[in-house]
Amino acid sequence: MRELLRVPAGGRIDLGGYDTRAVRGGPDGLDAPGNKAAGLAATARMGERLAGLQERLWASSTAGDRRRVLLVLQGMDTSGKGGTVKHVIGLLNPAGCRIHAFKAPTKKERAHEFLWRVRRNLPLPGELGIFDRSHYEDVLVARVRELAPREEIEDRYGAINTFERSLTDDGVTVVKCFLHLSYDEQRDRLLKRLDNPDKHWKFSPGDIEDRALWPAYQEAYEIALARCSTGAAPWHVIPADRKWYRNWAVSRLLLETLEELDPQYPEGDFDVERARERLVKG
Amino acid sequence: MRELLRVPAGGRIDLGGYDTRAVRGGPDGLDAPGNKAAGLAATARMGERLAGLQERLWASSTAGDRRRVLLVLQGMDTSGKGGTVKHVIGLLNPAGCRIHAFKAPTKKERAHEFLWRVRRNLPLPGELGIFDRSHYEDVLVARVRELAPREEIEDRYGAINTFERSLTDDGVTVVKCFLHLSYDEQRDRLLKRLDNPDKHWKFSPGDIEDRALWPAYQEAYEIALARCSTGAAPWHVIPADRKWYRNWAVSRLLLETLEELDPQYPEGDFDVERARERLVKG
Repeated sequence: MRELLRVPAGGRIDLGGYDTRAVRGGPDGLDAPGNKAAGLAATARMGERLAGLQERLWASSTAGDRRRVLLVLQGMDTSGKGGTVKHVIGLLNPAGCRIHAFKAPTKKERAHEFLWRVRRNLPLPGELGIFDRSHYEDVLVARVRELAPREEIEDRYGAINTFERSLTDDGVTVVKCFLHLSYDEQRDRLLKRLDNPDKHWKFSPGDIEDRALWPAYQEAYEIALARCSTGAAPWHVIPADRKWYRNWAVSRLLLETLEELDPQYPEGDFDVERARERLVKG
Repeated sequence: MRELLRVPAGGRIDLGGYDTRAVRGGPDGLDAPGNKAAGLAATARMGERLAGLQERLWASSTAGDRRRVLLVLQGMDTSGKGGTVKHVIGLLNPAGCRIHAFKAPTKKERAHEFLWRVRRNLPLPGELGIFDRSHYEDVLVARVRELAPREEIEDRYGAINTFERSLTDDGVTVVKCFLHLSYDEQRDRLLKRLDNPDKHWKFSPGDIEDRALWPAYQEAYEIALARCSTGAAPWHVIPADRKWYRNWAVSRLLLETLEELDPQYPEGDFDVERARERLVKG
């Protein structure tokens, strides 16, 4: 599954060649849910296994294991970054999740180099970190909107790769997901927001301005995904026009990642029989 | 419900008079679930309402509403602070929850006054903050284990009340829950941990030493609950021997709190028809 969605390291990619409505499954294609009902059920079923692995990861950290996972979510407006957090991360124990939504940098953040605010929000050992947007904004919106000189932006791809490599060296498994939405599906989702007054707070006229820059954003994503899909921290393209599939696919990526880490409950370093005796007597 | 579990301001309290297995419901007693199956179902049903109110609270903050909620969980070892976070906070959108588990203070934390680390972990406007242990440890374990001079501890109750009052003045609704466990139930839970090697990481022989100080801890709780149950930030005693009831009661307290706040989706400050036109054309 991970292999299937992974962006090959060192190549070029053409997002136009990726189907935003695709339903891709395991290598044999057998275990991808074929429809919404099956997808919702399969995602719910993964919840228990995910939560169990998450508990093991946390437990293991109490005995000195420094491993942790960082899920990076990127995508155009309405691609479902927030929905993924709600529906996928909602399957887990919130106490072990460290979620950060990156907004436009504050004045204080702008006074530091672009990775400064990222370093301050990393998961601790045993935790699952989730970035809703990330340091990639500094090569996406920053590139499209020309928020920094082009040479500086060019330098950032290498800085990101070095940074992510330092994370993986420190025990962080980085799982990067681009939620790949179609131009038409975005229009439908934005129109839906307009139709529902309870969703107006999620809408800003700026969303339409970003939409007008769609080709430039797609190009910026293609460059970022190609240059920063590394062996240490690969990018994955998640077809995101179907919410149920998006949630299933991200859950599945997390599950495969945690199963590969295979964290174990640590053994106690105390005398169990002696403890039992003291409790029964007390 | 809140009234029923609330510790009266300014009085003395005798925890021995509170039944740890009680099943208390609303003022008319009608809506308390009578058994585990009903309790689990009722808690699950509250999930959707809780999540809806949480979304409104968050949405409202995007329009400048500074209100937020801080849930403080205290209780003896195995009383279920972590379980409450998992099962109650797990009903909510994790993106809007800011959870902090307070451990024994680090060297850095000890170099500051006792509320310093608390101030650094408060919920932001629109968020639900959850403290698994809290500044109350500084008048609980600190009192029982004599970690500070008695006069200093005596001063802390007033400092806590002043601090919490400043929080409520700033839009924070503080909901404090003491998970009230019986001595016998704690023994059973600790023995269960010993029986399951996958739970040994949760056990430390120090738990038995704390258990030997049970009466001193109960007294420290009685003093803290009596002195710090204020009109601004009352304490609630949650019967905690039954996990399903504990989860139901805390969910119910949160639900009543959020319903009273009654946050509203903000209106959009843009021209909806104009936005629709631009989208349909684009």
